[in-house]
Amino acid sequence: MHRVVIIGAGFGGLAAARTLAGKPVEVTLVDQRNFHTFLPLLYEVATAGLDPGDVAYPVRAVIGRVANTHFRLGTVTGIDWKEQLVCFAGVDDGHDATSARCADDLPFDSLIVGTGAIANFFGVPGAADYAHPLYTLDDARHLRNHILLRLEEADSARAHASDGTLNFVIVGGGPTGVEVSGAVAELLDMSMERDGFRFDRSMARIVLIDGLDHLLDPFKRSAQNYAAATLMRRTVDLRLGARVSRVSPSEVELNDGTVILTRTVIWAGGVTVNGSAASTLGTPTTASGQLVVDSDLTVPGHKNVFAIGDAAAIPSAPGSDHTCPQLAQVAIQSGRHAAGQIVALVTGEVPAPFRYRDKGIMATIGRRAAIAQLRHGLLLRGTTGWLAWFGLHLVYLVGYRNRLTVFVNWTWRYLNWTSGPRVIVGIDPDTAIKSPGSPSE
Amino acid sequence: MHRVVIIGAGFGGLAAARTLAGKPVEVTLVDQRNFHTFLPLLYEVATAGLDPGDVAYPVRAVIGRVANTHFRLGTVTGIDWKEQLVCFAGVDDGHDATSARCADDLPFDSLIVGTGAIANFFGVPGAADYAHPLYTLDDARHLRNHILLRLEEADSARAHASDGTLNFVIVGGGPTGVEVSGAVAELLDMSMERDGFRFDRSMARIVLIDGLDHLLDPFKRSAQNYAAATLMRRTVDLRLGARVSRVSPSEVELNDGTVILTRTVIWAGGVTVNGSAASTLGTPTTASGQLVVDSDLTVPGHKNVFAIGDAAAIPSAPGSDHTCPQLAQVAIQSGRHAAGQIVALVTGEVPAPFRYRDKGIMATIGRRAAIAQLRHGLLLRGTTGWLAWFGLHLVYLVGYRNRLTVFVNWTWRYLNWTSGPRVIVGIDPDTAIKSPGSPSE
Repeated sequence: MHRVVIIGAGFGGLAAARTLAGKPVEVTLVDQRNFHTFLPLLYEVATAGLDPGDVAYPVRAVIGRVANTHFRLGTVTGIDWKEQLVCFAGVDDGHDATSARCADDLPFDSLIVGTGAIANFFGVPGAADYAHPLYTLDDARHLRNHILLRLEEADSARAHASDGTLNFVIVGGGPTGVEVSGAVAELLDMSMERDGFRFDRSMARIVLIDGLDHLLDPFKRSAQNYAAATLMRRTVDLRLGARVSRVSPSEVELNDGTVILTRTVIWAGGVTVNGSAASTLGTPTTASGQLVVDSDLTVPGHKNVFAIGDAAAIPSAPGSDHTCPQLAQVAIQSGRHAAGQIVALVTGEVPAPFRYRDKGIMATIGRRAAIAQLRHGLLLRGTTGWLAWFGLHLVYLVGYRNRLTVFVNWTWRYLNWTSGPRVIVGIDPDTAIKSPGSPSE
Repeated sequence: MHRVVIIGAGFGGLAAARTLAGKPVEVTLVDQRNFHTFLPLLYEVATAGLDPGDVAYPVRAVIGRVANTHFRLGTVTGIDWKEQLVCFAGVDDGHDATSARCADDLPFDSLIVGTGAIANFFGVPGAADYAHPLYTLDDARHLRNHILLRLEEADSARAHASDGTLNFVIVGGGPTGVEVSGAVAELLDMSMERDGFRFDRSMARIVLIDGLDHLLDPFKRSAQNYAAATLMRRTVDLRLGARVSRVSPSEVELNDGTVILTRTVIWAGGVTVNGSAASTLGTPTTASGQLVVDSDLTVPGHKNVFAIGDAAAIPSAPGSDHTCPQLAQVAIQSGRHAAGQIVALVTGEVPAPFRYRDKGIMATIGRRAAIAQLRHGLLLRGTTGWLAWFGLHLVYLVGYRNRLTVFVNWTWRYLNWTSGPRVIVGIDPDTAIKSPGSPSE
């Protein structure tokens, strides 16, 4: 039986695994986590709109009953190209850790690499240490705890308006930055209204920074203007054409010398490729670090190895120099295509090059305000945009149960907001209070 | 205005705060966490039946809109009896940690102490270090991650039946021990059926240990027998009349010399009073460490200081030597009573002694099996008992939104179980895999 190993259970890897279900191949899907993370909604977890469990879906719940597919939790430590083996360290918290590395060989006839992306701090001093990225579920949990603790701190007599406790700086005006900014504003409003905080809402500042002179670069100008106007109406302070030059635990500095006091810098400044994955693979990468792939998604020199999703620089059409954006849709479509190529290989069908079908882009700016830029330039915004965004995300959430929970949570929040999941979990209370510098965060 | 400080937002503290809402007093409610934990359902979180957010309810969502009540997140560090101050360290992860302690004084005219209980390891060697207690939300999260990682480990080629990876030992045959045992059995069954694990279910052993010759001591014999028979049918191995004499990372030893290989010891062996709370207060305690209270719930020597819930040795009736059990109902009723006493004090009404109204006891043994022992000896069991248990817990869950989410989760799980919240969250994947001994757990 033709053996396929898929590295990564993101949108791409899961789409590939689902495409290969029941096909005449034997699939092993590996990931460092036992769950798929629905990345487009991470910002909702970070701003206490959703619970972590709402955006995390157990991989085994997706493929557990598929006979030709097996999941393995662990880390890929290398590739043995000669023997065609993925070198793998599975779960073993115990007995002989030294021999655990590379203890498990996963032989493959075809390999799909969907290792995704990580936050790109662009070498800004202090950013990697003090800014909060938003690319994993743990990132989102930590950020949520951090924000909620700042509100509690501001509520106590010990906090002062002047020390930046209630200043929230978001770096990056793409969809994530816009969504986080809007959601933080909403969290503040609702907290003031419902949660009995005794600080002055006008003490709080939300600052969104981007180096370009507009937000949401890939959107049309009218959508960009709508987003900017909506954010400003929600008290978000826009700093366009500005760049962050330094981040410290208590402030950020911009390239024009402006210093903003803040203890919360949210980094939505862009993503880069998981470097260790690329170096493990050892195939060519682009200047930005993405894996180079041919039009059929194979990596140079290995016609049985496919790179998909954020990890790969995927030509948007055969022969095009233009590469696909780093979107869930690209990951899903490329994952399906790679899986289809493998089936073609096995069954002797004719392989085909990958061609991205653009289904549009979306961003939300809070309740009742979102923009959806669909094909043929159709633009939805305001409540219509929000409903489109809401519906699409519900449909795409992996698995029915999560969709239902998210629906209940959201609908309830939308109608009431009395009790969002605004709990600070996973911080030892003693640690959170006794240890300055908060290693627990 | 008469100032009331309530320490602890458990069942008792929250009931007291609610009773005082709108009354002619000024209330400050303090807790180390910003959420109330619905303790009776913690075992569901530990066994991946519910998400942590389902059993955690933000305190501010309960009292945020009550004008005469303020919540403070932080730690009580002492009581100044002379000045009638609660010494308090609020949230401040930053600037001057040394001065943070006792920085905030909370003056009180009346004080309610509801600091709850902690796990009692009874001095068993190794228990405090290696057994998993189940008394906080973090306990439950850690235990869930630990159990799910054991299943992943067993699924890998590196795990062997003989090393105890799939042995789960539960210490204590009270409601918590019985509930955890049943839920672990259920988790194993469902994981095998739905999640594509490739180990042999018969390799797994669940052992429930209790020093008495029966389970569920306060229940009637017929209920005890029903629970025992149900657990045995669900493959739980009962070791009654046995005591644990030692716990290590890889095994437990019983007092008869039996050694059981296991990496998962769940400690449901009993609770004791949070010692630091009692020593902070400095008033008399019983031999078991509970705060001594008079029949009106005041502590000796302080007619304006009340102790409630698990923290106090509450006479079940005025003058009785018999003390109330450590149950949510006792905490709620005593919290309400203490608050009522304070209102009586302020408004010049006649105070009254506390009298516990027993509403019955319950325990579940899994889906469709529970026992409910109501007043007048009425006993419900099986599906009827389960429905009674389910309904009561839904009604008592604090707040409507949680009730709804829990209802959706549970109902869905009950009907399907395809996708319980079986995600391993809050463990850095690298740490989980690279570091033997798992500090992350």
